[in-house]
Amino acid sequence: MKHTNSSLPDGVFAANLTPQKSDMAIDDQRLVDHCRWLLANGCDGLAPMGTTGEANSFTVKERMALLETLIRGDIPPANLLVGTGCCAFPDTVELTKHALACGIGGVLVLPPFYYKQVSDDGILKVFDTIINQVGSDKLRIYLYHFPQMSGVPFSNMAIERLLTEFPTIIAGMKDSSGNWANMQRICQQFPDFRVYAGTERYLLDILKCGGAGCISATTNVTCPLAGQVFSVWQTPEALELQSYLTRCREALEAFPFIPALKQILADHTGRQDWLNMRPPHIPLNAANIKSLNTSLDNLNFKIDYT
Amino acid sequence: MKHTNSSLPDGVFAANLTPQKSDMAIDDQRLVDHCRWLLANGCDGLAPMGTTGEANSFTVKERMALLETLIRGDIPPANLLVGTGCCAFPDTVELTKHALACGIGGVLVLPPFYYKQVSDDGILKVFDTIINQVGSDKLRIYLYHFPQMSGVPFSNMAIERLLTEFPTIIAGMKDSSGNWANMQRICQQFPDFRVYAGTERYLLDILKCGGAGCISATTNVTCPLAGQVFSVWQTPEALELQSYLTRCREALEAFPFIPALKQILADHTGRQDWLNMRPPHIPLNAANIKSLNTSLDNLNFKIDYT
Repeated sequence: MKHTNSSLPDGVFAANLTPQKSDMAIDDQRLVDHCRWLLANGCDGLAPMGTTGEANSFTVKERMALLETLIRGDIPPANLLVGTGCCAFPDTVELTKHALACGIGGVLVLPPFYYKQVSDDGILKVFDTIINQVGSDKLRIYLYHFPQMSGVPFSNMAIERLLTEFPTIIAGMKDSSGNWANMQRICQQFPDFRVYAGTERYLLDILKCGGAGCISATTNVTCPLAGQVFSVWQTPEALELQSYLTRCREALEAFPFIPALKQILADHTGRQDWLNMRPPHIPLNAANIKSLNTSLDNLNFKIDYT
Repeated sequence: MKHTNSSLPDGVFAANLTPQKSDMAIDDQRLVDHCRWLLANGCDGLAPMGTTGEANSFTVKERMALLETLIRGDIPPANLLVGTGCCAFPDTVELTKHALACGIGGVLVLPPFYYKQVSDDGILKVFDTIINQVGSDKLRIYLYHFPQMSGVPFSNMAIERLLTEFPTIIAGMKDSSGNWANMQRICQQFPDFRVYAGTERYLLDILKCGGAGCISATTNVTCPLAGQVFSVWQTPEALELQSYLTRCREALEAFPFIPALKQILADHTGRQDWLNMRPPHIPLNAANIKSLNTSLDNLNFKIDYT
């Protein structure tokens, strides 16, 4: 692995959830506690304000306040990959400058995701504009490839052109496509590019391919298992651990992640305010909760959350 | 037509373009001039900060400033249907309150469009939150149904539930699906609901169905023709006018709207700064410009823009 281009650690990241109060304001203390728990339980880093963190349901001001809360809570900024990609580039620029000033390890940048069928030239223009306006050679951008959600994929050609034009700044990618062939191809085609799988299902596979690790929604609860896989990934033991981790991930994939993960945390902590979330997300219904619990019980899945 | 629920006029609306300076800041004078031209050339109203106005490429602050510029430029607010739907509900609430304070006729509200596969319950929760937090019985919401772009459709069931819960506030809809059967069904199922077709192609059809009119990207240049159709829609003459209008619309549909419409205005005015636009949009390439001009020449399409 030649990952000279970034201060971010390899390994397991959680796209951490954003705990909220009953009025849907960020619950600062719960947030810091959860992030500390993640880092103490298998996570090498965190990706706050990603899809799972309901990033796009928060205003620019709220997103900056959240990051400041984490820093004040002694979460090490170098281990943070902060989501800053908005539809309007001035918002992305503002969030990215702010994140850099906070000393973060990298920013995870969605392409503008309202307009669809965007050309590679359009993608290049977006990143050219952001990079120029941020104007810092400390900037390390991770492309956030999540076509099912954003509707705007990064083509291989766009990645190649971005890397050619901004070789030190375009540092890596979170591939949330779920498409293993795509992750593998990108790892092989761009060996210095730090690729994180968007699911712990491919944690072992991507490490063997020279990738950086995984950044996932479900590592909010599976991080102890994922951390075990990462710690022994070069040994034969890793295979069985990965196999159980994959089965847990698969069980969770049957449910919408944000409500399901918040439900699990509510159940494990006994604190129902974990179920606060911003619309369009809504808590699981009773049938789904039952089905989720049955799935997890069948796997003997537990987390130690104190 | 029982359209007692809104101050917005029936007829032809343009989702007006947003002229920009070379640094992509809004060009206030050009914006006001263009909006005046639209209203003097067949438009009954305007929908600023819609898809064609590059709404989602502007910050909340820029969007509010744009509306204030229009008001200062004597564009009648009651004829404005202002786009206010953002991913984060607090942004939608802020823009909507501001638009109401400016005396606008209605707001055009996208659902939060980052998260996909949103349930009807999720949509209801979004609008319930927005309506409660805006807290004004002057509020008139037009649902912005544009599944190809937003990725989040309004189902018929969601519309019905919204109308049941907020009968005076949920005033109408812009249906940009391009799906005539859907527009027709909605007009028939919800007769008091003011449906605007998202394309002038269906202007005559939707008026005959009891709809309110059209709100379109391409009426930025076809408004004189669309205005003619509207003025005679109850006469036999309308058919031929609509037929020519439809052919012009079809010619434009071969190109991405924002760059194509800005190209036409640049060509007709000789002012190349019409080509300023925010990424991910980029100007048409030479081949597309040639092809666009050939199509329009073949139709003998001209606008009188002075």
